[in-house]
Amino acid sequence: MEGRLDFSGYQNEIYLGGLGGEKPGLPISYADLEAKAREVMTPEAFGYVAGGAGSEDTMRQNLEAFRRWRIVPRMLRDVSDRDLSTEILGLAMPAPVMLAPVGVLGIVHGDGELAVARAASSLGIPFVLSTAASNTMEAVAEAAGVGPRWFQLYWPNDQEIAASFVSRAEDAGYSAIVVTLDVPQLAWRPRDLQGAFLPFLTGEGIANYLGDPAFRAQLDEPPDENPTGAVLKWVSVFPHPTLTWERLSWLRERTSLPILLKGVLHPDDARAAIETGVNGIIVSNHGGRQVDGAIATLDALPAVVEAAGDLPVLLDSGVRTGADAVKAIALGARAVLLGRPYAFGLGVGGEDGVRHVLRSFLAELELTMALSGLTRLSEIDRSILEPSP
Amino acid sequence: MEGRLDFSGYQNEIYLGGLGGEKPGLPISYADLEAKAREVMTPEAFGYVAGGAGSEDTMRQNLEAFRRWRIVPRMLRDVSDRDLSTEILGLAMPAPVMLAPVGVLGIVHGDGELAVARAASSLGIPFVLSTAASNTMEAVAEAAGVGPRWFQLYWPNDQEIAASFVSRAEDAGYSAIVVTLDVPQLAWRPRDLQGAFLPFLTGEGIANYLGDPAFRAQLDEPPDENPTGAVLKWVSVFPHPTLTWERLSWLRERTSLPILLKGVLHPDDARAAIETGVNGIIVSNHGGRQVDGAIATLDALPAVVEAAGDLPVLLDSGVRTGADAVKAIALGARAVLLGRPYAFGLGVGGEDGVRHVLRSFLAELELTMALSGLTRLSEIDRSILEPSP
Amino acid sequence: MEGRLDFSGYQNEIYLGGLGGEKPGLPISYADLEAKAREVMTPEAFGYVAGGAGSEDTMRQNLEAFRRWRIVPRMLRDVSDRDLSTEILGLAMPAPVMLAPVGVLGIVHGDGELAVARAASSLGIPFVLSTAASNTMEAVAEAAGVGPRWFQLYWPNDQEIAASFVSRAEDAGYSAIVVTLDVPQLAWRPRDLQGAFLPFLTGEGIANYLGDPAFRAQLDEPPDENPTGAVLKWVSVFPHPTLTWERLSWLRERTSLPILLKGVLHPDDARAAIETGVNGIIVSNHGGRQVDGAIATLDALPAVVEAAGDLPVLLDSGVRTGADAVKAIALGARAVLLGRPYAFGLGVGGEDGVRHVLRSFLAELELTMALSGLTRLSEIDRSILEPSP
Amino acid sequence: MEGRLDFSGYQNEIYLGGLGGEKPGLPISYADLEAKAREVMTPEAFGYVAGGAGSEDTMRQNLEAFRRWRIVPRMLRDVSDRDLSTEILGLAMPAPVMLAPVGVLGIVHGDGELAVARAASSLGIPFVLSTAASNTMEAVAEAAGVGPRWFQLYWPNDQEIAASFVSRAEDAGYSAIVVTLDVPQLAWRPRDLQGAFLPFLTGEGIANYLGDPAFRAQLDEPPDENPTGAVLKWVSVFPHPTLTWERLSWLRERTSLPILLKGVLHPDDARAAIETGVNGIIVSNHGGRQVDGAIATLDALPAVVEAAGDLPVLLDSGVRTGADAVKAIALGARAVLLGRPYAFGLGVGGEDGVRHVLRSFLAELELTMALSGLTRLSEIDRSILEPSP
Repeated sequence: MEGRLDFSGYQNEIYLGGLGGEKPGLPISYADLEAKAREVMTPEAFGYVAGGAGSEDTMRQNLEAFRRWRIVPRMLRDVSDRDLSTEILGLAMPAPVMLAPVGVLGIVHGDGELAVARAASSLGIPFVLSTAASNTMEAVAEAAGVGPRWFQLYWPNDQEIAASFVSRAEDAGYSAIVVTLDVPQLAWRPRDLQGAFLPFLTGEGIANYLGDPAFRAQLDEPPDENPTGAVLKWVSVFPHPTLTWERLSWLRERTSLPILLKGVLHPDDARAAIETGVNGIIVSNHGGRQVDGAIATLDALPAVVEAAGDLPVLLDSGVRTGADAVKAIALGARAVLLGRPYAFGLGVGGEDGVRHVLRSFLAELELTMALSGLTRLSEIDRSILEPSP
Repeated sequence: MEGRLDFSGYQNEIYLGGLGGEKPGLPISYADLEAKAREVMTPEAFGYVAGGAGSEDTMRQNLEAFRRWRIVPRMLRDVSDRDLSTEILGLAMPAPVMLAPVGVLGIVHGDGELAVARAASSLGIPFVLSTAASNTMEAVAEAAGVGPRWFQLYWPNDQEIAASFVSRAEDAGYSAIVVTLDVPQLAWRPRDLQGAFLPFLTGEGIANYLGDPAFRAQLDEPPDENPTGAVLKWVSVFPHPTLTWERLSWLRERTSLPILLKGVLHPDDARAAIETGVNGIIVSNHGGRQVDGAIATLDALPAVVEAAGDLPVLLDSGVRTGADAVKAIALGARAVLLGRPYAFGLGVGGEDGVRHVLRSFLAELELTMALSGLTRLSEIDRSILEPSP
Repeated sequence: MEGRLDFSGYQNEIYLGGLGGEKPGLPISYADLEAKAREVMTPEAFGYVAGGAGSEDTMRQNLEAFRRWRIVPRMLRDVSDRDLSTEILGLAMPAPVMLAPVGVLGIVHGDGELAVARAASSLGIPFVLSTAASNTMEAVAEAAGVGPRWFQLYWPNDQEIAASFVSRAEDAGYSAIVVTLDVPQLAWRPRDLQGAFLPFLTGEGIANYLGDPAFRAQLDEPPDENPTGAVLKWVSVFPHPTLTWERLSWLRERTSLPILLKGVLHPDDARAAIETGVNGIIVSNHGGRQVDGAIATLDALPAVVEAAGDLPVLLDSGVRTGADAVKAIALGARAVLLGRPYAFGLGVGGEDGVRHVLRSFLAELELTMALSGLTRLSEIDRSILEPSP
Repeated sequence: MEGRLDFSGYQNEIYLGGLGGEKPGLPISYADLEAKAREVMTPEAFGYVAGGAGSEDTMRQNLEAFRRWRIVPRMLRDVSDRDLSTEILGLAMPAPVMLAPVGVLGIVHGDGELAVARAASSLGIPFVLSTAASNTMEAVAEAAGVGPRWFQLYWPNDQEIAASFVSRAEDAGYSAIVVTLDVPQLAWRPRDLQGAFLPFLTGEGIANYLGDPAFRAQLDEPPDENPTGAVLKWVSVFPHPTLTWERLSWLRERTSLPILLKGVLHPDDARAAIETGVNGIIVSNHGGRQVDGAIATLDALPAVVEAAGDLPVLLDSGVRTGADAVKAIALGARAVLLGRPYAFGLGVGGEDGVRHVLRSFLAELELTMALSGLTRLSEIDRSILEPSP
């Protein structure tokens, strides 16, 4: 694990490598990263990761929203002693950065979430594992070792399976439950539909179900004997359009882990979250993959933060650069979650690719802060920003 | 006909087809649909459908206007029981979606409006048949069967023909008359002019005239013996630049069918509509095909809705995605009409193409609503939107 | 000359030609027109016409400014009786459209201004002849015949030549003097500079000087014996950076023709114009060819109109479509002047090309008005516009 | 050196060259200049000059900010007597233009800063030499001759070296010290990182260190015997993240030369500058090369000017055209500094290339002023601008 001041050291490491004739084999800029991923991944897998809902308008707006704010750097402050660390719901983090839950990473790279967990763990960056992972939460936990991890819950419509997921997550050392709200069912995603590609239907991304005792108990035959039957069972338990605020009390009583709600965009939903006794909020529109036309997350953030009172608010969807993270934090986010960047990193370089993307992001974040005169997250607030004219 | 909850089932149908090795042969995204149509249609026909007036600025602005509003989805509502149905002027509709009148569909596909009527009927979606159709209203009615249908009237400058059109529409089971206001004559359309292509002059798109007793009575010879004479008669009766508000009383007395005025953009014209005793308004700029530089329909909508009082207001021009429909309804439209999307669907796949486009749109609309926490049209109002920053 | 209601007849003419197998050989849209001009003109001539000052930012903004306003068409008005005619400073015009002065048209087409004068005259559209024409004002007057014409004055720094120009213009039937203010000297124009192409230095565009008695009187040898000497003399008399408001009184006393000032962008300059006793103002930034970064003409128009009191205000720079003309008139312009469109028309088709561009523009203007419910210029005011959101 | 009224003479020179068959071999527009530089420079060198930090968003915004203001030219003023001269901190300048410090110009062209100094000197335009130059300040001074020059200080973390730099600059005739504030260390620059290219590590751009007695005193072996040791020493003394406002008093006492602070973006930092007794401020974001997401310099300028009281404020980052300079001056800048333009000029044409870029810029500036009715810098204020609508 890197020490707290060494994120920017990745810069030196790269330049010094150049002296020895070694250049980064992995792309540095996000544009190059996406282009390379498009080249090396299967069209279906690339489309699945890169695509969004409908016209992909919200996906684009997520990026655009960050252009609406400008950092006003301050000069001549001693920025030698940098500490990006923070603590959210008892989790000590070296930087306000997490890996967002992304499903089915097995289609991106053979090592899938195992590689991601290893990369994240090596840097001490928390990984939020998706219910829809290609590997079981237990296998990922083992790969992560002591690495910090939260479990993202796609709350199935079967209570026993839901309960089993939460228990297994607790047992496997996941230290919080992130309940995704914005997928009562899958959205209209043209890229996937054009290829008629839904990985889950081929058994990809349902490892947590296949390995679940409650899920298996409901099968007539074991998954390996009747894979189609298992998939059809998954089809029947995955969507949960009847889930409402009331049901959160069941989960609240079920676990003593912190619970975060992911997908909040309206301040009234933030207020409702307080009522339910959950512990945190993630402002997200699922990377523009659910409601096309939905508000960009950075645009939604300030009102949600104001409504959320003492609950910590995190943000994902559209974070690409260190400056994006600084802006989100200045507008009230306690941390940001990366999604597509690390998925593409996985695609182009496996564990090393994820680590490269993460180290690059952390280096850029630390440098952006230092060059803006900021050495602690507590110094980042609305006063460092101006709206773009 | 699909049941009220099954629109989104098209998504499953496509994905399950993928398991059997079958992918959609028809484009999913609008961009792909337009590209495919450009490929398979004749340049003249594609230009006729795809083109607009002048610099096509209004055509582009129609799309842009939808980008000026953002949906703020709500979470954790029970969205399992969805009902998109509505009733407009006595017409029960499974969803707030209609097919806009588009003329001369015979140049797009050999089956023209017949294919469209069959596709719309199979889904219970109302079809507004254009006066300028390639098939007679009677033939289209037969193709539509029990399918709901309205008749769009290009009010000819000859009263007897106008009266005959209305009577025939009544007899053929069209349940409303949609009077198009914005074509007292054709606009300056560079794509058509460059090709010197006006389909009507070759006898395309004037079936309703050629088959009309009042029209034929004015010909010296039957159309099949003297086609040129028939076209010239059409040229003399089509434009109607002297039509004014006063003449609507004639039509009002002529028919007991509901009358809608299509092409209203100014609130004062909505107020005038109330005075005339018509029953509804369609905010439209003819898909940007008449006044280049005209206000985008979504921009015009709120003021027209406010001025229209109890009259139902519908909207067309620029609707491409489910999110577009949700935004239009949130700003006061009772329904939206699709134009180019289904015409391109017809071009690339005939009746199946139209049905594919419609099912895709309806699935996306239902999913956009559900994922935004909305299960009834009555829940969609201005409060679900934020203006784009 | 066309009758007042026949502008839109060009549309029918084109479509009917299509029936006989004849399509317009000349481009209809401005984009196509410019593309064709680029193809057929020499790179130097095309660059000279198409280019602007500096980064060409103002040139682009001139077009963009028209996008900032939207027409709100009105329906069901009797638009059969259209009259676009107007009178400006005693000049009866069939439409609020003139041909802006463009210099050196001989590099665009062998017939240069003679072809333009003939085309304009055939339609009764006034032509403002440039001092920097490739043909003398007398030759152009003869080509124009009874066609209406104004003379644009690049006021030379030699008073006798200036006086001679004005006298000759009077004698040749030019009915107003348009004093260009914004060219005390030529701007920094990268396209011309890159080709080191200034046509005047090769004797192009100085016909009015070479044929001028006062100019010739100052030459040691006649131009045909010593062309270089004539050019050098031109170089010495053309720039006039010392010209100030005070000097206008000299011109005012010199001629009884109406005087218009072209190039006014600031309302204080409009007020100054009133003081000097001139008769009209043309808001212009020379098509973005002089001050790069200058305000777009349509943006400058309202304040100038307000300051100009009773003086008629015209506008050029950026007018491309009928809708542009309607917007300019709605914001207070009495007429618009076309520049590049007709110059490109000349390049691609000589006299026929100019006429084609003019007839297309007039047809589109008439149709835009009629389809917006407008039949007289007096009905066009600020109330028909909404600002773009 | 050019006289004060002759900047625009470059225009005539080019056009007259055209008569003799000679066209500019060097690009006129910035777009062409950059394209040519990309062609002739090594990819690494071009990337180093052309690239910015992170997503290069601030780099683009620097240009965009100038589009937010429009010049409103005034007519009929006597603009024959132009004087662009100014005096800043005792330095008489023929125009409000300087050459910004750009490091490592040896990778751009073999003659590096020597060529730049010669070109600037030949026009009397001040050159701000970078600490990170490829040539020593003494060699550059010799090349500059009587040419005006300031020295830009990257304040090393070693006080003796810093003191030595300042003394040497004084001795070599540099008449001001420009302290760069925004590089306590290098930013995250994807183009350089992708190529693992940091020129300093190969000994490029550290001439001022290698030739410095204080620096050499700290080496175990002379640089030519142990170049790697020298580079490593540079690595250890260059970054200075502990530099704070307090340390400026040391410099203030150390030299009687005027001191300017470069990199101020926040008005509070301008106020702090007043307190420290420095003499001037340069609003800069290092050409978008340090904090990606930082405010554009022109957007930051007005508030800094207001806060800076009597201190002269200069601006760099994004200045490309004469209009840009006029706008910056109108918003309070006393002068602008050019960076990439002259670096690309150096790349494509050495000393001649720099001179060409400078002469072009000065000609365009003078012409933009004259054509806007302005003959003195004192006439340029906020009243000549309108915000873009």
